Parts: sequence; structure tokens; C-alpha cells
Amino acid sequence: MQIFTELSQCGETSARTGVVTTEHGFIQTPIFMPVGTLASVKSVSVEELKECGAQIILGNTYHLYLRPGCEVISHIKGLHRFMNWDSPILTDSGGFQFFSLARLAGFSDEGVAFQSHIDGSRHFFTPEKAVEIQSILGSDIMMSLDWCIGHPADRSSAMEALEKTTMWASRGMEFWKKAGAPNALFGIVQGGMYKELRALSARQLVELDFPGYALGGLSVGEPTEMMYEIAHHTIPLLPIDKPRYVMGVGTPENIIELVAMGVDMFDCVMPSRNARNGQLFTEQGTMNISNAAFTMDDAPVDSACSCYTCRNYSRAYLKHLYKTRELLSYRLNTIHNLHFYLNLMNGIRNSIAGGTFKEFKNSFYSKLEK
Amino acid sequence: MQIFTELSQCGETSARTGVVTTEHGFIQTPIFMPVGTLASVKSVSVEELKECGAQIILGNTYHLYLRPGCEVISHIKGLHRFMNWDSPILTDSGGFQFFSLARLAGFSDEGVAFQSHIDGSRHFFTPEKAVEIQSILGSDIMMSLDWCIGHPADRSSAMEALEKTTMWASRGMEFWKKAGAPNALFGIVQGGMYKELRALSARQLVELDFPGYALGGLSVGEPTEMMYEIAHHTIPLLPIDKPRYVMGVGTPENIIELVAMGVDMFDCVMPSRNARNGQLFTEQGTMNISNAAFTMDDAPVDSACSCYTCRNYSRAYLKHLYKTRELLSYRLNTIHNLHFYLNLMNGIRNSIAGGTFKEFKNSFYSKLEK
Repeated sequence: MQIFTELSQCGETSARTGVVTTEHGFIQTPIFMPVGTLASVKSVSVEELKECGAQIILGNTYHLYLRPGCEVISHIKGLHRFMNWDSPILTDSGGFQFFSLARLAGFSDEGVAFQSHIDGSRHFFTPEKAVEIQSILGSDIMMSLDWCIGHPADRSSAMEALEKTTMWASRGMEFWKKAGAPNALFGIVQGGMYKELRALSARQLVELDFPGYALGGLSVGEPTEMMYEIAHHTIPLLPIDKPRYVMGVGTPENIIELVAMGVDMFDCVMPSRNARNGQLFTEQGTMNISNAAFTMDDAPVDSACSCYTCRNYSRAYLKHLYKTRELLSYRLNTIHNLHFYLNLMNGIRNSIAGGTFKEFKNSFYSKLEK
Repeated sequence: MQIFTELSQCGETSARTGVVTTEHGFIQTPIFMPVGTLASVKSVSVEELKECGAQIILGNTYHLYLRPGCEVISHIKGLHRFMNWDSPILTDSGGFQFFSLARLAGFSDEGVAFQSHIDGSRHFFTPEKAVEIQSILGSDIMMSLDWCIGHPADRSSAMEALEKTTMWASRGMEFWKKAGAPNALFGIVQGGMYKELRALSARQLVELDFPGYALGGLSVGEPTEMMYEIAHHTIPLLPIDKPRYVMGVGTPENIIELVAMGVDMFDCVMPSRNARNGQLFTEQGTMNISNAAFTMDDAPVDSACSCYTCRNYSRAYLKHLYKTRELLSYRLNTIHNLHFYLNLMNGIRNSIAGGTFKEFKNSFYSKLEK
């Protein structure tokens, strides 16, 4: 199953552009996926997502399984129809939420027993069930159930998580194939911050021949340099003819650095979550809209920005909305930040295709205020 | 100053259609004004307001005076520009908020001393200052400072409030005329639930010859029938060549009944506030979107409704968003409710103009589920 076509390569880095083919259309890579945890990218409409340049969004299997639940999504005939989004959707497997959110009641080779963070209800996930739920959601790209660990973690914990992840990946893939291999299923490389374990995990998963690969267990508390080192070590071990996805990362800087290493796909709550906390991204760095300096500031957040928010509203108005907790604040801020991220990806793609990625990267850093 | 032109009359009731002329364009009456307390109709954009059919919105002088404050609005050159709304704006005078929200520190013939409900800071409003602030906001229709009382209130309190309101109306009008009579200034009839006091208040204000008149101090806890009785008694005492506005009212039924008495303008937080509490308006009555019956319901809120929400989303999705407190919930619900109110006003106007208002009113009631 070949879903990725490489279109161009950067001559000086490992950056590349490509196209991922899904049931709901093409995705141009490198791409950033806004996070729509509960069948909604918080505060924005699907039309606004499209206007911001979103080609694909991410849904969270753990959250959607708990609310509204598979019965509802199945009855409404899938997540796309439920939330009125007609472009591709990628869903994670739940693995990261078991690590970060759920109250774990235990895990074994068989799967994960957990209690809902909402009502304490008891549930059990197996790798087969993770694929089954994602099939009900109708995800264009499903993720294998993985076992995620934090940082620091000792080698034996990292080894155990890796082994479990590989075993589950194999079972999930078998289940997926038996179901006729609907949509696409990605494997997730684990192995903590141990290079040899990352290599082992990559080798084992590549053998299973997934349509795409992700690096999981990054951005879990490790220093940025360590994250780069692990990614730099692992990315080249993944097949060049498959999309490569680094999960849950990151800042604009992180994205540029990882693109240079050959990463094709990203997701992160940062643009949307930070927007709701009043932090806005610009080429010069971030600004906190609640800053007193903006009280009378008639200028847009970024006069070079073409997003809906910057075209229509002043910093003074955005500051006022944020300080008074008006609901419109979260929307206008989120639109700006998502547009910033997606516009950055557009700039990255164009520069790679045009053979000027290195200059683009240098220019990106030179604009940042020290 | 003549801002109102009557266009048609109902043959069987006192209902009428008309046009109010303002600096920012025409308003077709009878009209409902969505409430944009803090320079934003909560959760919706100005484009969404327009799509819902909003012709004019209301801003709150008390709230905007406190946040962001006159200095900011003045610097940005008015409320229209600040919030990116290019159609008419009506602002109240603050009178109702002194009654309902602020901590009063005392009032006299001169004006009202109060403490902010936000930070306890001390302020003093005079009728002149109320007009001055509204001029800075750039309201197309400004309201005289009034003194509002609740229900029940004894006759002497009602009399005192009326006298203060008339005195302040006279001073506000003088101030407004000296400033060159910018935009329009409306007088507010008070008098509690005492018909003879309402008549006295109306007579005194009509003498001052305002461009328009409002009934204040209704919907303050009195039974609906009493509100209708007071309105029915007072409306005919107002000039037929001026717009008549009942402040803070009300349900769709209230609006239909008051239109039949000759009222031209309405405002109320009900459609927007109730939306945020999950209550949606339909021709059959209200529905609570959190109802378990909607969990798997693939139908729109109202299949006859042409609003953005009903065109694109199911009850199941709206219930899910509401239960998970997704920010999009408040927006989609508000769009539906505002569209319902504004579409109702459109139906009212068309039926009056077409000579079928009585039938429209009967049909409205016959559709309501008992």
C-alpha cells in the first residue's frame, strides 16, 4: 500500500515535499495537523480551518471513544459527517492519553485497562480494539496502539514499552489486514531516549511494512536538543517512500528543524491552546495579547499576516476581548495562530520545491527577536 | 429630527412596519437587536450576525465605560471601528445596570455614584456624562440616563424614579442639543406598574420631543400580563411618527404581542444567553439540546430552519459539543437562536406589509406545542 509520493528534495538538508493520498483527498507535505480532540478544533469552524489552510486535522481516539462514544459516531456514519469535515482526518490510538490523562488500572501484553478521566468508568483497550474504533471513526490515517513513556525513563522501562508497542503494532496490523486494510495504518516508533532502542523499534516496525511511520514518545519532558538527537538518529531508519510523522511536536522552530531532518507530518495543541491563553505567534516571536502595551494599539497582531483576525481586528480589540473573557477572543486568537502555523508550512513547502529551504530557514531565524 | 418613516399598518392591530434612518444605514422595523454587551455579541462574529439577519446591535454603556473604557474607544475612533461592525448600533444609558449590577453608592438629582462590579472602583454618572460617553462610543441611537426600579415597587418609589428620569432626560437632551444633536437620542418612559405614572412619564418626555421613545422598567419581575397591560396603556401615548422601543423584552410570544400593540424595536439577551445554556428556539417551542433524546439524533435542530447551524450540524453533534463544553457549542447555538429571532422579525414585517399579520400571529401560536 503506497500512499506517499515524494515530489522534491532539498539539496542541502533532508527536507522534502510530497503528497499523501487518502480517501478524502490529497495532503501536501510537510504538513501541520490542527488538533480536534473532541470532534472540534476548539473554538473554530470547519470553514475557518479551511481558510487557515488546514488540509487534514487530528482527532483523539481516547476522547472520542469516551464522548460521544462509538455508538453515536457509528450511527451518524463516521467522524467526518458528524463534525462536517470533508477533508482527511488522522486519529491517534489512545496510547498517549493512557500515558498523560487516564487513570491506569493496569496493562499487560493483552492491552490496557483504564478508568475514564471523566467519570471513572472502567474500560479495556487492545491493539485490535484501537484499530476497530478508528475504523468506526472513519479516520483516513489510523495509528497503531503504542505504549508511551515519559522522560527520564530507565532503559528497562523503555525496552518494555518498545516490546509492547511492537507486539501491539503487529496485532493491530493483522486485525487491520483481516478487515481489508481500510484507509491507512501507521506504526509508532518508541524506545525512549535510547538511540539503540529507537533503532530496534524502527527495524521491527519497518519489517511489518506499515503505510506510514511516526515517532512517538517525544516532547515528553526531554530537552529540545535530546529530542532533535533522537529524531536525527531515527528518521533515516524509516523508509523513504513512506510518510514520516513526529507526534505532538511542536514549536515553529521544532518544526523547521525536523523538516530539515526529513519529517513530513506534525501535530500539536500549541497554536490552539496557546491562543486560548492569549499567546500569539508572529515571525518575530510570540506576543502576549494581554500585555498593557496593546491597550490602545490600533495595529493588527502582525501587519504582514493575511489571516481573518489580522485583516479585521486591532491588538486593542483582541486585548479587550481576552481580558473580558469574551468567547470571540479564543476564536480570533486561534484563527491567527493556526494560520501562522499553516502558512509556515506553506512557506516551507514552497521553499523546498523552489530549492531555497536553507535560505527560508535562515530567514526564519533571522526574523526572530532575540 | 425625524428618523422614523412608517411604511405600512396592520388593519386589525396596531402593528406597523417602518424604517429608522441612522448614520450607518436603515433599519427595517419591527426589529430585534442582538445584545453585544462588551463590543461583541457573545461567541459570534460580525459576519455571522449579518448572515443571521442582524441590522442593528446593542452595546452596553456601563460595561463599555468600565472595559475597555472611553479612552480606548475614543483612540480607536468609536465602537463601530473597534468591533468591526459597520451597521447601526444602539447603546443603553447604563440606567438598567445601576439597577441590576453595580454596587450603588448613592444617587441624587445630580446623578448616580456607583462602584464597578469588576474591581470596586468608584464612578459617578450624570445624564450629561451618559450622553457624552455614548457620543464617544459613536452610537447611532443613544438612550437617556434613566432610573429603573424593580417589581414590586411602591407608588412613591415609582414616582421618584419617574421624576428623576424626566429631570435627567431633560438635562441629557439639553447637553445633546448643545453638542449639535449628533446621531439620535431616545427618552425612556418609567413609572413602574402604575398606569397613571406611566402616562405622566410619557407626557413629560413627549414634551421634550425626543427622536424616539422607549419603555424601560419592564421585564423586571412582574407577571407577563401586567407587562402587557402597562405596554398596552403606554404605547398609544407615544407619538406615532417616532420609533417605539421596549427595552429588554423578551420571548418570541412577548415580541409578537408587543408588535401588535405598535412596538417597533426590541432587545434581549434571551436568544444568546439561552443558547449558551443549551436552550434552542424552534417554531414548536424551545428544546434543551442536552436532552438524552438527542444523543443519536441525526436531524438538524429544525429541519425548516435555514441557519448555518441547521444547514450543517445534527442535534447529536450539538448535544455532544454542549455536553463536552466545546467552545463551538456556544457559537452554533447562538447562531441558531439569533437566526430564529431575526427570522421571526422578518416574518412579522412581511406579514404586516402583506396584510396578514393576524394570520401570522395565529399561525405562530398554533405551531407552539402545548
